[in-house]
Amino acid sequence: MGAQLITGGAGFIATALIRRLLAAGHEVLALDNFSRGDRALAAGFAADPRFRLEAADCADSSALLAAAGEFHRRHPISDVWHLAANSDIAAGGRDPDVDLRDTFMTTFNVLKVMQALGVDHLHFASSSAVYGDHGGAAIGEDAGPLNPISNYGAMKLASEAQIRAAVEHFLPRADVLRFPNVVGTPATHGVILDFLAKLAADPTRLEVLGDGAQCKPYLHVEDLVDAMLFVAAQPGTGHRVFNIGPEDAGVTVRFIAETVRDLVSPSAEIVYGGGDRGWVGDVPRFAYSVDRLKAHGWTPPSSSAQAVTRAVREIAAQQEVRSCRP
Amino acid sequence: MGAQLITGGAGFIATALIRRLLAAGHEVLALDNFSRGDRALAAGFAADPRFRLEAADCADSSALLAAAGEFHRRHPISDVWHLAANSDIAAGGRDPDVDLRDTFMTTFNVLKVMQALGVDHLHFASSSAVYGDHGGAAIGEDAGPLNPISNYGAMKLASEAQIRAAVEHFLPRADVLRFPNVVGTPATHGVILDFLAKLAADPTRLEVLGDGAQCKPYLHVEDLVDAMLFVAAQPGTGHRVFNIGPEDAGVTVRFIAETVRDLVSPSAEIVYGGGDRGWVGDVPRFAYSVDRLKAHGWTPPSSSAQAVTRAVREIAAQQEVRSCRP
Repeated sequence: MGAQLITGGAGFIATALIRRLLAAGHEVLALDNFSRGDRALAAGFAADPRFRLEAADCADSSALLAAAGEFHRRHPISDVWHLAANSDIAAGGRDPDVDLRDTFMTTFNVLKVMQALGVDHLHFASSSAVYGDHGGAAIGEDAGPLNPISNYGAMKLASEAQIRAAVEHFLPRADVLRFPNVVGTPATHGVILDFLAKLAADPTRLEVLGDGAQCKPYLHVEDLVDAMLFVAAQPGTGHRVFNIGPEDAGVTVRFIAETVRDLVSPSAEIVYGGGDRGWVGDVPRFAYSVDRLKAHGWTPPSSSAQAVTRAVREIAAQQEVRSCRP
Repeated sequence: MGAQLITGGAGFIATALIRRLLAAGHEVLALDNFSRGDRALAAGFAADPRFRLEAADCADSSALLAAAGEFHRRHPISDVWHLAANSDIAAGGRDPDVDLRDTFMTTFNVLKVMQALGVDHLHFASSSAVYGDHGGAAIGEDAGPLNPISNYGAMKLASEAQIRAAVEHFLPRADVLRFPNVVGTPATHGVILDFLAKLAADPTRLEVLGDGAQCKPYLHVEDLVDAMLFVAAQPGTGHRVFNIGPEDAGVTVRFIAETVRDLVSPSAEIVYGGGDRGWVGDVPRFAYSVDRLKAHGWTPPSSSAQAVTRAVREIAAQQEVRSCRP
């Protein structure tokens, strides 16, 4: 295995992935446009001579080719982990250009650069959002119809489509990994961080979008990265799709709100907004089948409730440290 | 029903559609960038005061908004028929920017302009190419997985995805119509025209890409437009997907080659290239289920063989007229 390129390399999931790749002895180039990624997240690796973090916007194909190409000449890249994407689904709903640019064009350009440099193996962070609203039935990878109801989900599906065609044309291998909701530290966005911030601002009251009944599967980021590396280590070539998630149908927003409240502000009142979703494009109920991944030999080690409970503790500790900074 | 906007309005399918829309009494604005469309195709409508043909590239959102907006102020548009796309699948395989721009960005921009102008009803020319290679089993609209193997198919699927999200966010109605191979006049591209051109150049020999066994369903353009208008006339709102095609599993390239040869150059030798597909991204065997359309009340009036035989006669006559021009 050669050097590893990670797009969105200063983001939440990238941080956990890079730690594992460096521990396995790889050269790593992390690229980020720092629109949402944070240089501070990579601070823990800064001293490692095999790690480089560079500013490059993957939506700009010239910038991506320049940064990746220069590194590739010194350390031939064998794998691209394409994690760069818009992570604010509601923002993408207000302006479709956000997901066009950050979620789809980054993928389109990554494929071009892989072809130009002759890089063989793509690992793509796709999403449960490609499925849309299937009413809570457990969805397997071959399910249809695919009905994304957010621009984010649409541009993840568009990315998957372009990757599938790339495998037909030139790309030796693509692992398409459909992520569930992922929690853990270093948290940069998401419902747990939102709830903690709200309770920090007003410890007596927690306002929740929607009626709190939205139920989704959650995976801890350390388990997610474990599954990603497990799939990567499988032999073979071509195009493969894997759901990565817990085995259960998830926990409700109400469960998350209560877990956060109980930890940091037990006497706070939780106030629900109403309606069965938090924003347009939010899927109210969602469940995965992870039978394909299990058949290959990887079984999720934690339930959604365990993942959320662990992440709430970790993120609360992270925020406490941050708030104590001078 | 208000005025009708047709993108790719100087193309093959648009010509047959516009004839029917004008006959039904509509104001029609046809937009085309004339990269593949031909002003001459619309010559038959030029005298109709309700018909306008304007140069505008739908991949340029400003140009599209300007052209559509100006017309919309005089004749409020109720329907957009989005037919603009790359039609050269092999060219899109050589350069992914072709389908990004002509197949996907045109859709992305059409949606933006519909939102900006408040146009309610989108009719989208999608394709069997979104399915990919299912080995010849009859595919229904809800089938999965969707595995486009050409950049063309990938960007049609990306378009479908963005349309689905648009219906969730703002668009009252979208009819997604998955076309099979469509034949008839005025032919601008496609296998029948290719074979006629080859036999015009060398009446003794017809070279065919692939082994001739590729088998696909064909529909005559007049039947296709009939189905499009049938779906449009169904009541209701929201997002709907329809396969449009014949009821049979199609005819082979060998059948088409022999039909063309028998008509124009009966003594010519047909020489097959070999391999089970004509180019990368070509699906060798493909069949539709059109049960959904039939359940709504539209039954294909012709078989693939009838459609091809009719189209071969029509296109041969078209080419004969063209070759006699001074």
